[in-house]
Amino acid sequence: MSRSDHPSGLSHLDAQGNARMVDVSQKAVTNRIAVAAGEVHMQAETLALIAAGGHKKGDVLAVARVAGIMAAKKCPDLIPLCHPLLLNAVNVDFELDTDNCRVLVRASCGLDARTGVEMEALTAVSVAALTIYDMCKAVDKGMVVNNIRLISKSGGRSGDYLRQQD
Amino acid sequence: MSRSDHPSGLSHLDAQGNARMVDVSQKAVTNRIAVAAGEVHMQAETLALIAAGGHKKGDVLAVARVAGIMAAKKCPDLIPLCHPLLLNAVNVDFELDTDNCRVLVRASCGLDARTGVEMEALTAVSVAALTIYDMCKAVDKGMVVNNIRLISKSGGRSGDYLRQQD
Amino acid sequence: MSRSDHPSGLSHLDAQGNARMVDVSQKAVTNRIAVAAGEVHMQAETLALIAAGGHKKGDVLAVARVAGIMAAKKCPDLIPLCHPLLLNAVNVDFELDTDNCRVLVRASCGLDARTGVEMEALTAVSVAALTIYDMCKAVDKGMVVNNIRLISKSGGRSGDYLRQQD
Amino acid sequence: MSRSDHPSGLSHLDAQGNARMVDVSQKAVTNRIAVAAGEVHMQAETLALIAAGGHKKGDVLAVARVAGIMAAKKCPDLIPLCHPLLLNAVNVDFELDTDNCRVLVRASCGLDARTGVEMEALTAVSVAALTIYDMCKAVDKGMVVNNIRLISKSGGRSGDYLRQQD
Amino acid sequence: MSRSDHPSGLSHLDAQGNARMVDVSQKAVTNRIAVAAGEVHMQAETLALIAAGGHKKGDVLAVARVAGIMAAKKCPDLIPLCHPLLLNAVNVDFELDTDNCRVLVRASCGLDARTGVEMEALTAVSVAALTIYDMCKAVDKGMVVNNIRLISKSGGRSGDYLRQQD
Amino acid sequence: MSRSDHPSGLSHLDAQGNARMVDVSQKAVTNRIAVAAGEVHMQAETLALIAAGGHKKGDVLAVARVAGIMAAKKCPDLIPLCHPLLLNAVNVDFELDTDNCRVLVRASCGLDARTGVEMEALTAVSVAALTIYDMCKAVDKGMVVNNIRLISKSGGRSGDYLRQQD
Repeated sequence: MSRSDHPSGLSHLDAQGNARMVDVSQKAVTNRIAVAAGEVHMQAETLALIAAGGHKKGDVLAVARVAGIMAAKKCPDLIPLCHPLLLNAVNVDFELDTDNCRVLVRASCGLDARTGVEMEALTAVSVAALTIYDMCKAVDKGMVVNNIRLISKSGGRSGDYLRQQD
Repeated sequence: MSRSDHPSGLSHLDAQGNARMVDVSQKAVTNRIAVAAGEVHMQAETLALIAAGGHKKGDVLAVARVAGIMAAKKCPDLIPLCHPLLLNAVNVDFELDTDNCRVLVRASCGLDARTGVEMEALTAVSVAALTIYDMCKAVDKGMVVNNIRLISKSGGRSGDYLRQQD
Repeated sequence: MSRSDHPSGLSHLDAQGNARMVDVSQKAVTNRIAVAAGEVHMQAETLALIAAGGHKKGDVLAVARVAGIMAAKKCPDLIPLCHPLLLNAVNVDFELDTDNCRVLVRASCGLDARTGVEMEALTAVSVAALTIYDMCKAVDKGMVVNNIRLISKSGGRSGDYLRQQD
Repeated sequence: MSRSDHPSGLSHLDAQGNARMVDVSQKAVTNRIAVAAGEVHMQAETLALIAAGGHKKGDVLAVARVAGIMAAKKCPDLIPLCHPLLLNAVNVDFELDTDNCRVLVRASCGLDARTGVEMEALTAVSVAALTIYDMCKAVDKGMVVNNIRLISKSGGRSGDYLRQQD
Repeated sequence: MSRSDHPSGLSHLDAQGNARMVDVSQKAVTNRIAVAAGEVHMQAETLALIAAGGHKKGDVLAVARVAGIMAAKKCPDLIPLCHPLLLNAVNVDFELDTDNCRVLVRASCGLDARTGVEMEALTAVSVAALTIYDMCKAVDKGMVVNNIRLISKSGGRSGDYLRQQD
Repeated sequence: MSRSDHPSGLSHLDAQGNARMVDVSQKAVTNRIAVAAGEVHMQAETLALIAAGGHKKGDVLAVARVAGIMAAKKCPDLIPLCHPLLLNAVNVDFELDTDNCRVLVRASCGLDARTGVEMEALTAVSVAALTIYDMCKAVDKGMVVNNIRLISKSGGRSGDYLRQQD
C-alpha cells in the first residue's frame, strides 16, 4: 500500500488505527518547499499601533518573525507524529492589510528530505500569529487568527500542490 | 503607568519600543482561567474518516488532544515574551460539526499566577488543530485552521473577559 | 468526586475517557518528597569497567547523574499529563552491587506544590539508567534496566506511601 | 583504535576518561533499525481498567503511545552523549498480558545514519512505560517498570544483534 | 552546615563530591533581582553595520534581544544543576560603544523564589552575545565575547551583591 | 549575490533588513569542523577547589563538560537563525591555568552539512563556562567569562579560518 496500511488512507494510523510515525525509509530524498499563510484580524487601532512600530521604534513584527522561525524548528517537538527534519531555509513575512484590519502572515520552508515540510510552514505561521496576539492583547483581546492554510508545496512523490482561489 | 511604559499601550515594548518580558512582580497571584477555541475546516470525507475513528479504532483526536495539552506546557518556549507559568489544569475538547464540515477545538487552562493564561489556551488550540491537519493531510491538503480566538478569561486585575456573539 | 470524574478512578481521564491534565487548583501547596529506584543489570566485566572509572578517571556515573538530574526537570515535557513543577531539590545516587552484577540507581526529588513529585523521581532514575546503558553499550548490548519503582512519597492529601519489602 | 581511544573500550570516554560525543564522521550512513521492549507490572484490577479503556472509551495506551513516539525524538536531549538523529519511523505497541498482570511495551525505530538507533527505541519504551505508570498511579502506586532491553538491531559496522532467549 | 555538606564549600557537590541540585526547601521565597553584563568586540565596520540597522531597517539587535529573553527561560535546561524558576521579568539591552568597537549587552531578571536568578541573567547575556556573533559572522569571524559577569544581585539570605569597579 | 541579498552583507537579513534563516539549499554538503575557546577567570582559592576536585572526588569539570556537549545539540534552539544540524562529534576540554587564575575551555564540533558548525562550538564553550560559574558562585560571585572566540573552522565554500595570535 503506497502511503498507509490503514484502510482509511490516514497514513499516521496503522492497520489497527494506532498512531505511529510513518516509515519514510523507502522515499527518496528530494528538495521540498512549502508555503503557508494565515491572518490576524484586529481592531483598526491595534493595526495602527503595529504599523507605527513598523517604521519607527516598535518591533511587534520583528519579535513575531523570530518566533515563527524558531517555531518551524520546533515542529517535530510539537506535532507528535512529525518527522525530525533539517531545514535549509525559513522565511516569515508580514503584510499590513489596513483595508481589512488584519496582518497577513506568510511562511516558506525548504529542505532536502524524505518527507514534506508543510507542517513546519504551518507551525511558523501559527506561532508568528499567536505572538502578534500576545504582544497586542493588552489593548485588543478580541483578535482572531484565521485562515491558516497551505498555499503550495513542491517536491516529493505526491507531486506539487498549489492552492486554488487564494 | 499601569501596564506599560510604552506610549502605545503595548505592554511588551518598553519606552523605546524594545521587546521585554513585562515585569509582573507587583501583580497579585490570583486564580486565573482562560478558554480558547478554533476550528479545522475540511472535506466531508475527511471529517467522516475522523468520525469513524472516533468510536472504533482511530485516534486522530486522541493524538491531537495530547498534542494540545503538551503544547500548553510549551507556551513560554514558543511565544517569546510569555512568562513561564505553572499550569493547574488543561483540557482540550473536540466536537465534530458535520453540518459545516469542521472539527471544533476548545481548550481551557487554569493556574494561580501573577499573569494570565490566555496564550496557553490559544497555543493548545492551535497545536491541536495543526495536529489534526498533520494526521489528515495525506487525504486532504486543503484543510483550513480558522477562527482561533479567546472565548473567556477570569482572574487578574484587568477583570473578566467574555467574548461577544460566539 | 475526589480525584476523578471518571468511573474507573483513573484521574487523568474525564467522564468520557478523554485525557486531560487533572485540575489541582483545589489542592493545597504542601512540601512533597518522592524517592524512586531502579537497577541496571550487566556483565561482570562491564560493571568492573564502571567501577574502575569510579575512582580513577572514568565518569560513566558522573554523566549518568547529570542526565538523571536534568531529566527530572524535563518530566512535564516527557510525560504528557504531568503538571509543570518547580523542583526544590534532586539527588541521583548509584551503588555498585558486584555480587549481583548491577548498578543500583536511586533518585529523590522534593518540592512545594499542589501535586506530587513521583514522576520526576521515576524519570530521573529511568534516564540515569538509560545513560549507563548508552555509555556501556559498545561492550555489552545485553544490559537490562529493571525494577523501576516508587520507594516512598510524602506530602499531599493522599498521604504517605512506603513501598513494602524493598 | 576502531571504536575508542579509551583503554577500557568504553567509546564515550576519551583516553583520559572524559566524556565526549564519539566522532562518527568516518562511519558510513546505513539504514539502521532497533527494537526494544519492556514491561509494566501492576495489580490485576489496574490492568483491567486499562483493558476496559482499550476498546470502549479510555485512552491510557493511546496517550502512552504518543508519549513514547515523542520521547524517541527527544532522545539526544535526554541522553547526554547521544548523537542527534533523523528518525525515519517510530512504532510503539502494547500487549496486555493478563496472565502475568503486565503490559508489554515494544518500540521500533528506523533511520539512515552514521550511528545506531538503540537509545531511541529504549527511550521510547521507557517513557511509554512511565506514562502508563503516571496515568494509573492514582489507583496503583506499586507498579514496576521492568526488563527494559534491546531486542534487536540491524545495520552498521558492528553487525546485527538479536537478543537470546526472549 | 549552611549552604553545603561539602567540605569545599561548593554547594552543588554533596559530601562525596557528587553533583546534586541543592535543596532549597528551607530557604524563604523572596523577591530577587540579578543584573549581568557582557560585551561583543568586533571590527569598526561590523559595528557600523549593526548601527545602520539600528535606526533604519536591520534588526540584529532585535533578534539578539529576543534570543536573550528566551534563553533566560531556558536556563534550567542548559545549566545542569539550576533550579527551574518562574521569571517575573526579563530585560535585555544593548549599547553601541563605537569608541571601543563593541556592543555592550546587559540583562536583568527578577522573580520571587527560594533561590537566585543570577544564572538566568548571565545566560541571557551570553546567548544575546552569541546571536550577535551569529548574525555578523559572515563579515567578521574574529569577534570576541568578553567580560560576562554578574553586576548585582538583591534578595535572598546571602545578601546583596554589587560588583566593584564596573 | 553569493551569501546575502542584503546590501550590508549580513546574510541573516533579507533585502528589507528582516531576519530569516538563510537558504543553504544550494551549498554542498561537506565535512566541517569548528573549534572555539574561552576562559573563566576566578580567585586563586576557587581554582584550587576545582583542581582539588579534579583528581579526587569533585566533578565541577565533569558536569560542565556534559553541559557543554548537550548545549552544542541545543544550539538551533537558542540561536534564532541557526540551522538545525546533525553533529558527528563534540569534545569539550578544560585546562587549569593556575598562573593566571583561570580555567581554559575549548570545544570542537564536527559534522557533514551545508553550513558551518561555529555556533555549536561557541555555544558549547559558553554553556560550559556558565556551568563552572554556577557551581562555584557560592564561593566566588566575581568570576568572569572571557574571550569566547572562534579558533578555527574548516570545510565549506568560504574556506578555512585560523585565528591569528592565539
